[in-house]
Amino acid sequence: MRMAMKPKTPLVQKFFLHLPPPSLKDNTAEIDRLKRHLRSEFGIEPIRLPFHLIPEWVRLLRQARYRVTATVAMLPPLYQLLQLEPGDTTGRNFGLAVDLGTTRLAYQLWDLGQRKLVAETDSRNPQTRFGPDILTRIQWAEDPLKQKELQGCVVAEINRILGCWAEIYGFSSQEVFSLALAGNTTMTHLFLGLDPASIRREPYIPMVNSVDPLQARELGLNLHPQGLIYVFPNVGSYLGGDVLAGILNSKLYRQEHLALLVDVGTNAEVVLGNSDWLLGCAGAAGPALEGGVAQMGMTAGEGAIEKVRIDPGTKELTYSLIGQGPPKGICGSGLIDLTAEMFMAGLLDLRGKFNLKVPTERWVEVDGQPAYRLVPPEETEDHRPIVLTQVDLDILLRSKAAMYTILTTLVESVGYSLSDIERFYVAGAFGNHIDPRRAIILGLLPDLPLERYLPLGNTSLKGAAEVLLDYHLLEEIKKIAGHITYVEMNVNQAFMNRFSAARFIPHTDTALFPSVRVPAI
Amino acid sequence: MRMAMKPKTPLVQKFFLHLPPPSLKDNTAEIDRLKRHLRSEFGIEPIRLPFHLIPEWVRLLRQARYRVTATVAMLPPLYQLLQLEPGDTTGRNFGLAVDLGTTRLAYQLWDLGQRKLVAETDSRNPQTRFGPDILTRIQWAEDPLKQKELQGCVVAEINRILGCWAEIYGFSSQEVFSLALAGNTTMTHLFLGLDPASIRREPYIPMVNSVDPLQARELGLNLHPQGLIYVFPNVGSYLGGDVLAGILNSKLYRQEHLALLVDVGTNAEVVLGNSDWLLGCAGAAGPALEGGVAQMGMTAGEGAIEKVRIDPGTKELTYSLIGQGPPKGICGSGLIDLTAEMFMAGLLDLRGKFNLKVPTERWVEVDGQPAYRLVPPEETEDHRPIVLTQVDLDILLRSKAAMYTILTTLVESVGYSLSDIERFYVAGAFGNHIDPRRAIILGLLPDLPLERYLPLGNTSLKGAAEVLLDYHLLEEIKKIAGHITYVEMNVNQAFMNRFSAARFIPHTDTALFPSVRVPAI
Repeated sequence: MRMAMKPKTPLVQKFFLHLPPPSLKDNTAEIDRLKRHLRSEFGIEPIRLPFHLIPEWVRLLRQARYRVTATVAMLPPLYQLLQLEPGDTTGRNFGLAVDLGTTRLAYQLWDLGQRKLVAETDSRNPQTRFGPDILTRIQWAEDPLKQKELQGCVVAEINRILGCWAEIYGFSSQEVFSLALAGNTTMTHLFLGLDPASIRREPYIPMVNSVDPLQARELGLNLHPQGLIYVFPNVGSYLGGDVLAGILNSKLYRQEHLALLVDVGTNAEVVLGNSDWLLGCAGAAGPALEGGVAQMGMTAGEGAIEKVRIDPGTKELTYSLIGQGPPKGICGSGLIDLTAEMFMAGLLDLRGKFNLKVPTERWVEVDGQPAYRLVPPEETEDHRPIVLTQVDLDILLRSKAAMYTILTTLVESVGYSLSDIERFYVAGAFGNHIDPRRAIILGLLPDLPLERYLPLGNTSLKGAAEVLLDYHLLEEIKKIAGHITYVEMNVNQAFMNRFSAARFIPHTDTALFPSVRVPAI
Repeated sequence: MRMAMKPKTPLVQKFFLHLPPPSLKDNTAEIDRLKRHLRSEFGIEPIRLPFHLIPEWVRLLRQARYRVTATVAMLPPLYQLLQLEPGDTTGRNFGLAVDLGTTRLAYQLWDLGQRKLVAETDSRNPQTRFGPDILTRIQWAEDPLKQKELQGCVVAEINRILGCWAEIYGFSSQEVFSLALAGNTTMTHLFLGLDPASIRREPYIPMVNSVDPLQARELGLNLHPQGLIYVFPNVGSYLGGDVLAGILNSKLYRQEHLALLVDVGTNAEVVLGNSDWLLGCAGAAGPALEGGVAQMGMTAGEGAIEKVRIDPGTKELTYSLIGQGPPKGICGSGLIDLTAEMFMAGLLDLRGKFNLKVPTERWVEVDGQPAYRLVPPEETEDHRPIVLTQVDLDILLRSKAAMYTILTTLVESVGYSLSDIERFYVAGAFGNHIDPRRAIILGLLPDLPLERYLPLGNTSLKGAAEVLLDYHLLEEIKKIAGHITYVEMNVNQAFMNRFSAARFIPHTDTALFPSVRVPAI
């Protein structure tokens, strides 16, 4: 799957045309003249245009004295002429990339003429008011009216963000001709107004994996009405377009060496492979690792404790926050840090149980159970202490064990071992925040040299933006989608054995983690 | 321009599919499953489908237990899925071919499953109530409301015919998935709702020559709403889609030997060439030859005198009619017959003037001028005699001279002479009715061996029907359109000299017509 490099060209490209005006010697019809020029000057052929716009565009050609800008959807084998404008407007071409997450939407606005990122932001997925998780929303969507609402609120949210940006950066929605969006399979279905019910019902069949490019007006999106909407194809019910965008962005599929991409979101998705083959799997390992379940857990955001250090000698604890204080809770990376540090300081044993024999004033009692206090109530925002309970810890350890087991199972299914992974890409906010060294100590990530770990950030969003900037990638996406094999994680006895072994810190088999020196307690 | 022969496949083809139902081992999404099957079983790829129909079609797939009929517009490089139905309906696929003439519309209804012509008819072009000729209609079309009416009445007329046939032959409009239409450039513009004004204004630029395939609903045609409308491309303002359909039907562009196609309609269009090159021209030679201007002239139809014989000795005249009597008038072929026979009987001189010295009781006086009476008043339908006046005769001779001059000029422009023409195709009702021998005597057609003359009938209609039956011809039409060179008939001194010489019967240069023995008067 290596490809020849072609010069990058946006998914929707503007061409300034100066047509030779008609004459007795060159009396090709107006529209054919336009097509002829696009072919001879830019190699754009064949191209279709909206029939109903012919009279308007012929008038425009004549009034503009045959100096016009053609906006073309670069969708070979059949290009589409989206817009014709008088004069040279090639400098005005905006595109929006969207990562449609279950919890949050992330956006990038691109000036495609300048190939420049204009703005980036994210916002809450308004569907969360129907329910935080995918399953609840699938249930809501059984009612066709609610399904329309689920679609409508996401479309409205994207329109809202675009509207704000248009005001701030001084462009019109008519100048936005492309939107590329990646999300998981259910989110994609809801966005398209398709019933996702069958995704979660045996035999787990989405309605559609690869949807043809759409026009903005078909979905009610406030771009140019003919604006092109590209939705990343899903691989299957459990591997969505967001993972495909991630593979695209990581370039994992172009490399000879073995690489692994892990995206910890509401679910964890893992892709393993190289330029010859790709395996993908998905499993429920995520929420705790994202800070989603611990009593004081929160997603990485303002006021979250993201980094923790404990002096092994004095047991003194220091932490750092995202943004300005006061602290509100602890996010996934903070939790991983905390647990690893507690373990190295002897506050936890191999099985992940509190070692109450080690004296520290931080041992407290919550609901009659022992807990470890990070922040006293007087220092927090809501004047409740930030604590770690044994229950939280157990959940975290189950999550990390599930993660490690999924990684091991996937890698060994093709006869490799974890140490063969030469690049370990960690996607998502999770990837940006976790400290790989602490994650290794915990036994969440395999004991690889640290330089093999590469945080990539929001690969779904970045992959979507890449497509806006280069339509040639559509072909690559198609190849990746056709290329990847989904591996079902059968929760069988072998899996359960592995899982149990991985619930220790870092693992029952310490030989797997030679760099982690277990402290003598 | 020779092409490999591929098996004929209709422009819109139905495929019966029995998809493997989804299972845990094959959980490709529903729509992708459909596409996969079309690709693997029939080589149909890539294919687009209407986004808004996805939910309906997924439901249908499931309800029909994955046994469905897919109706596909065969438009590579991008096929289009028009319809999905439960079960096997491949036997129900109808198509309509239309020749959109200035005066009349001609239709063929095809059963595309059986490759069988179901019915054929023609009807008056309802636009004639706005004016008989193209120019009047172009003027009407300057008013946008009238332009809409001009379009609407033709669409309504096609719908009317289709509705009648649906009732007679027991099919529904939903089972008609294709319509192919050929007309001249102005008629095509009016049909598409495009202003034809610029066609007749220097530099004579149509709005569009090749219009992309349309959906029936875009034009208000009563086919299946997604039914495919194929409109033959025009070559230029004066060579329309009807001529292109004629070239296609004559197969002139596939033959090595030199051939000529002439279509005498309201205008006369001439195409010369072979498999290597094609020249086309158009000129005003038609109306008189179609019986359009003579006082008693009429188009070939019920009650028209189409054949005339005059005994050179007795000067006795016999005629035959189209259909049952009584006679109403004389059509183009009758007029040609009459003139040639009068000439051979010595009733006309070389210059085409009545030879009143030859005695016959048929010489009469009309408005103080001599005339030749074919039918006495008591034998005609409206009790007016059918006569030929000197004025009519002069018009006919100018027409035939124009025709012969156009043929000569075109053929000599590429260094050939008329005798090099190995196939002389005569299209239209005109071609079916004229007697080539009489046309040669008159000097309308060149003096070629009679077997070289081949009447083809309505090549525009037949060409349109061919496309319904085989989409591979779209590629050929594109090549023909790109291949043909339009020759402007400059009415210069050389042309006028030729024209004057051709006004004699058969010609001033009798050596050009060796087979015609001029009678000694």
